[in-house]
Amino acid sequence: MADSLAVQHIGCLVTNDPASGEGPLGVRHDVDLVVDDGRVVAVQPAGTALADRALDAGGGCVLPGFVDSHTHLVFAGDRAEEFTARMAGRAYDGGGIRVTTAATRAADDETLYRLGTARLAEAHHGGTTTVEIKTGYGLDVATESRLLGIAARLTDEVTTLGAHLVPAEYAGRADDYVALVCAEMIPRAAGLARWVDAFCEAGAFSAEQCRAVLLAGRAHGLGLRLHGNQLGLGPGVRLAVELGCASVDHCTHLADADIDALAGSDTVATFLPATDFSTRQPYPPARRVIDAGATVALASNCNPGSSYTTSMAFCIALAVREMGMTAEEAIAASTAGGAMALRRTDIGRLAPGCRADLQLLDAPSYHHLAYRPGIALVRATLVGGRLVG
Amino acid sequence: MADSLAVQHIGCLVTNDPASGEGPLGVRHDVDLVVDDGRVVAVQPAGTALADRALDAGGGCVLPGFVDSHTHLVFAGDRAEEFTARMAGRAYDGGGIRVTTAATRAADDETLYRLGTARLAEAHHGGTTTVEIKTGYGLDVATESRLLGIAARLTDEVTTLGAHLVPAEYAGRADDYVALVCAEMIPRAAGLARWVDAFCEAGAFSAEQCRAVLLAGRAHGLGLRLHGNQLGLGPGVRLAVELGCASVDHCTHLADADIDALAGSDTVATFLPATDFSTRQPYPPARRVIDAGATVALASNCNPGSSYTTSMAFCIALAVREMGMTAEEAIAASTAGGAMALRRTDIGRLAPGCRADLQLLDAPSYHHLAYRPGIALVRATLVGGRLVG
Repeated sequence: MADSLAVQHIGCLVTNDPASGEGPLGVRHDVDLVVDDGRVVAVQPAGTALADRALDAGGGCVLPGFVDSHTHLVFAGDRAEEFTARMAGRAYDGGGIRVTTAATRAADDETLYRLGTARLAEAHHGGTTTVEIKTGYGLDVATESRLLGIAARLTDEVTTLGAHLVPAEYAGRADDYVALVCAEMIPRAAGLARWVDAFCEAGAFSAEQCRAVLLAGRAHGLGLRLHGNQLGLGPGVRLAVELGCASVDHCTHLADADIDALAGSDTVATFLPATDFSTRQPYPPARRVIDAGATVALASNCNPGSSYTTSMAFCIALAVREMGMTAEEAIAASTAGGAMALRRTDIGRLAPGCRADLQLLDAPSYHHLAYRPGIALVRATLVGGRLVG
Repeated sequence: MADSLAVQHIGCLVTNDPASGEGPLGVRHDVDLVVDDGRVVAVQPAGTALADRALDAGGGCVLPGFVDSHTHLVFAGDRAEEFTARMAGRAYDGGGIRVTTAATRAADDETLYRLGTARLAEAHHGGTTTVEIKTGYGLDVATESRLLGIAARLTDEVTTLGAHLVPAEYAGRADDYVALVCAEMIPRAAGLARWVDAFCEAGAFSAEQCRAVLLAGRAHGLGLRLHGNQLGLGPGVRLAVELGCASVDHCTHLADADIDALAGSDTVATFLPATDFSTRQPYPPARRVIDAGATVALASNCNPGSSYTTSMAFCIALAVREMGMTAEEAIAASTAGGAMALRRTDIGRLAPGCRADLQLLDAPSYHHLAYRPGIALVRATLVGGRLVG
C-alpha cells in the first residue's frame, strides 16, 4: 500500500452491490472505503482502515461516479438561438446539426481539445467519472478522423458516429454517404474507437442503412450501439436488439413490441431525459420498460443542439419527477446502468476490485440528488482514486 | 474613487434598463461596468474605465444578481423521506411542516444561523444577491422571535410568517392561534422584519384569518405579502390585491378574475416553479398573467418540504420549458421582478446609482441559463461590489 487512501466519515455508501448491503443499491453504513493503486481494495468497519492518506467525507453520501454512456462532448460553437426559438414555439430552421458540423470542421484540433477538456471538467465536477464520447460533427472522412483522435485523448469510450446525419454534400444520396461511412470512416476508427453508432430515425438513417453501418463496425471489431425511437415509433429498438447492441439510446417512443424485445435481450435501454426537457418532447415510458424487466441507463446526451448539459443529477431529478423512476432506480441507472450500457464490470460499483471511481456528496443521502434539483451537491470526484473535481 | 472596481471584458451586459440598451433587458455590448463605494457609478465604453481594481468577465455575460424574493432559509432537519414518498405516489403523512417545526424548535440559535449561512452561501454561488427570508417554522412566540433575529443576521428582507400553519398545540383553535400571531408575534417583529405574510389556502388559513394577520402587520408598520392559490383556486390573489400586498406568491391556480385583479394592481405575481416541480403540481399560467399586463417575479421558495433548492437558474429553466416564458421574461422576473416584489428600486438593475449586486456567467449569453439546465454557470457573484461567491 504505497499510496493507499481511506475514505472516512461516510454518511452512507452506495456500493451497487446488493449482496453486501441494504436494498437494491447495496447501501452500507459505518464503513470506510479503502483504495489502493486506483482500485477499491476494501469496504470495512469505520475507523479500522490503515492507509497512507485519508479523505474525509464529512458525513456525506459516497456513491460510484456517474457513468455517462452517451455524450457528444467534442464540438465547436453553440446553438442557443435554436434553443430559444424552439422554446418560444417559433418555426426556425437555423440548420440544426449542420451548424455544429460547420463550426466543428472550421475549428482546429487544439481548440476542439480545449473545449472537450472543459466540458469533461464540468462533468467531473458534477460527479461523472466515465464519459462515452461520440464523433458525428465531422461528417467527412478527415474531420471524423480528427474527432476520433481528440475524443480518444479524453476517454477510453470513443464511438464513431459518421452516421449521425447525411451531410449537405450528400443531400439526396444517403446510400452513397452510408457507403462512405462503411468503407472509409469505420476502418479508420479501429484502434481509436470501441464502438460504432448510427441514428435510426426518419430524417436521419433507415433501419437498413443503420444495419449496414453497424455490421461494418462489427467487421472492424467495434461494439454496437444505436440511437433509436427518439422522435416517434420506429424500427430502431428492434434492430438494436436483433443485432445485439450494447445499448439503444433515447427510447422516448416505444411500442409494446419494443419493450418486449428489450426485456428479452441484453441490450440496455438508455434514456436521455435532459434531451426531452430541452426539446419539449414527452419523456420515455421508463416505468413500463423497467417493469418489463429490461435494463435501463440514464445519460446526459450532452450536445449543443438538444441537450447542452453534462449534469447527471439533473437527469436523475427528471427521471424521478417525470418518468416515475424511484431514486434508487435513477441512481442505479446513472452508475451501474451506464456501465452495463458500456459492457463494463469494473466501473459503476464500489466493490473490491472495481476502479476507484467515486463521488462524495455534500448531502447525507443519495435521495438529495432528486430532492435538491439544480444544486451542485458533489464536493469531490475521484477517478481511479485521484481527485478530478 | 478610493476602492473602485472596473468589470472588464464583458461579453454582454444585462442592465434591466431598457432606455439604455437593447430589448426588454437593456442589453449592452462593448462596455465596462464601474463600481465605487458599493454602487454602480458608470457603464461606459470598454477600455475607458479608470478604477483601482479590475475584474475580468472573460467575455461572459454579466447580469444583475438574482433577487430571490421568497425563501424559508432558516430551518433545521430535512424531509427527504417525504419527498421520496410523494414522488413514488405513496400516501405518506410524515407530518409535513410540523416535522420541520419540531426540528427547528429543538435547534439552538447558532445551529440555525450556521445552517442559514450555508444556504445563503449556496444561493450566492448560484448568482443570488438578495434573499427574502421568512420565519414560520417556530409557530410559537419564543421560536418565531428567535427566527426573526437569526434571519435578520442574514438579510434585510425579513418576513414574519407566524401564520404559516396552525401548530399542533392549537389544533381546532385556528382563530385563537391567529389572535396569538396578531397580539404577540407581530408586535415582536417590528424592528427586525420588513414584511408580514400569511398562507391563504384550504388547510392553512382562511381569507378572513389572513386579513386579520396582514392588517395587524400593517398596524405595526410592516409591508404585506401573501401565499395564495398554490393548491387550488381560492381567495388569496384577490385578497392580496385588495390589501395592496407587494406580492402574492405561488399563483399556480388562477381564475380569470384573479388575473384581471393582478393586471389592474401593483401586486406582483410571484411564481415558484421549483415547488411545482418538487410537488408534481401543474405549473402556473404565466403566459396568461404576463399577457394580461401583470408584473411577475420568479423565486426559489427554498424550504425542506416542497422546494429544497436555492437555484434561480433552475427556476428560469423551468419557466422557459414549462411556463412559456421567454428567456428575457424569466431573467427579468428573477432580477427586476424580484426587486419589484420587495418594492426595491436599488437592486435588480445595473444602472448608475444602483447597488453593485451582480453575477458573472461562464457563458456568452443569458440564454444559457435555460439552455444549459443543471449547470452551475455563475463564475462570480458580487454583493455591494464585494465578491461573495
